[in-house]
Amino acid sequence: MSSEGASRASCFLGRAAQGQELMAGLGARSVLVTGANRGIGLELVRQLLSSPDPPQHLFVCSRQPDGQRGQELRTLISNHPNVTMVKLDVTDPTTIKEAATYVEGHLKGTGLNVLINNAAIFTDLSLEAAHPEDMLNEYKTNVIGPLLVSQAFLPLLKMAAKGGSQKGLSCSRAAIINISSSMGSVELVSHTYIKPAVPYRCSKAALNMLTKCQSLSYKEDGILCSAVHPGWVKTDMGTQAADLTVDDSVRGILSVLSKLDDRHSGILVNWKGEKLPW
Amino acid sequence: MSSEGASRASCFLGRAAQGQELMAGLGARSVLVTGANRGIGLELVRQLLSSPDPPQHLFVCSRQPDGQRGQELRTLISNHPNVTMVKLDVTDPTTIKEAATYVEGHLKGTGLNVLINNAAIFTDLSLEAAHPEDMLNEYKTNVIGPLLVSQAFLPLLKMAAKGGSQKGLSCSRAAIINISSSMGSVELVSHTYIKPAVPYRCSKAALNMLTKCQSLSYKEDGILCSAVHPGWVKTDMGTQAADLTVDDSVRGILSVLSKLDDRHSGILVNWKGEKLPW
Repeated sequence: MSSEGASRASCFLGRAAQGQELMAGLGARSVLVTGANRGIGLELVRQLLSSPDPPQHLFVCSRQPDGQRGQELRTLISNHPNVTMVKLDVTDPTTIKEAATYVEGHLKGTGLNVLINNAAIFTDLSLEAAHPEDMLNEYKTNVIGPLLVSQAFLPLLKMAAKGGSQKGLSCSRAAIINISSSMGSVELVSHTYIKPAVPYRCSKAALNMLTKCQSLSYKEDGILCSAVHPGWVKTDMGTQAADLTVDDSVRGILSVLSKLDDRHSGILVNWKGEKLPW
Repeated sequence: MSSEGASRASCFLGRAAQGQELMAGLGARSVLVTGANRGIGLELVRQLLSSPDPPQHLFVCSRQPDGQRGQELRTLISNHPNVTMVKLDVTDPTTIKEAATYVEGHLKGTGLNVLINNAAIFTDLSLEAAHPEDMLNEYKTNVIGPLLVSQAFLPLLKMAAKGGSQKGLSCSRAAIINISSSMGSVELVSHTYIKPAVPYRCSKAALNMLTKCQSLSYKEDGILCSAVHPGWVKTDMGTQAADLTVDDSVRGILSVLSKLDDRHSGILVNWKGEKLPW
């Protein structure tokens, strides 16, 4: 997002959410991350494990946990008995259901505190170059995926929300965090259109809508639902031209997540704690 | 949209766009309407034909022009030689391309002034009830459809924009009008969530994003691109519980379209001329 775009965001979580501060803990007993084998997902796992209060149960999901692309993740978690690798392809309803059953068995009736829907794909296609298949693929992974994963893990999230003594909404109680993008903000398109990325933008706009619907539907269940823009990050997706290291982005994201409460459910917030327009 | 939601909209086209005023003409030589066999599409055809300056070429598209559901449309246009029925299924790229070729041949090098992407489907499904197929079907019809139809007719729209002597953007020059919905506004969800309609909301949020992208991409080509919320209308889709007759809705829409200019490209506007938030 350009500086002009950023200036239109309201900074409601203040400087406390900046990347330079000390690493924050989520206070969550259990966390699940999709798309955990690289990029932001991998860094979320790394920083959660080295936080002052790491989750007792960290479920790291990828399409092919045993594949070559999972090597870095496997190395990272090798000395962490609190981490469980889970096979989960967000475009395959069967693996989603199997993953939920597996995680449920592992948690032994304690529920899941935080679901981070991070898995996503990106192609930078113009209006003329976008084909139906491109549109469908990004919608399946970036929107239907988070919908189905949230459906499958909803009973465990509700269990976590009910299980504790907390009343308000927070990531230490129960939360669905959808990793979205400022590129899904219609209001900000004129500031970010240097990359048209039409299939991606349409999918992220829809994901923002999904997040808002989830926040309204699950408020009474005690589940916080927010969308997070991680910034333009130096990852396979963001390329090395990006302006933010994955370390700084994830440090910011975790700091922001640790501060979210009832006021922030159903919003799009960036890694610096600034609320972005839809 | 509830009155609370409406109060958050800014009325920029003023009372002139209210349904009670005399019917406005678009000043467009040629207009194409998808989903023209019923509901808002059918009424658009009816009012365009009875306007003070009916289009010289009105292309009315439906999936099955010869089918039973096209009877009302066939009767309506039977005495109007300026109307051409065109087979066009927005989920079938082949029929879209064939329709564009057919219309091009009919227009004999004069271009198309207004493309109204009206065809859409709606299901009122909750977060828990929405299946992948529901999400995909609504995305295909409500988002990918308008994308593909716009791609196919873009050369004719550009031709119309270049052909006249007009400089600014308007429906009398060249325009893509996407019939969207306030239910696609993330900002307004909390006012409209009485119907969850998650697949529909996600698709219309994406359509709003598509509209904004189109407005930026095609501005230099002289093509106005706006999204229009028709209100909650008594049609097959809206049901008889809706608060607005299709006559009033379409009268408002045509009045609004006739007034759109450079300032209104890339916005979501309702049938009363009020700009809605994303």
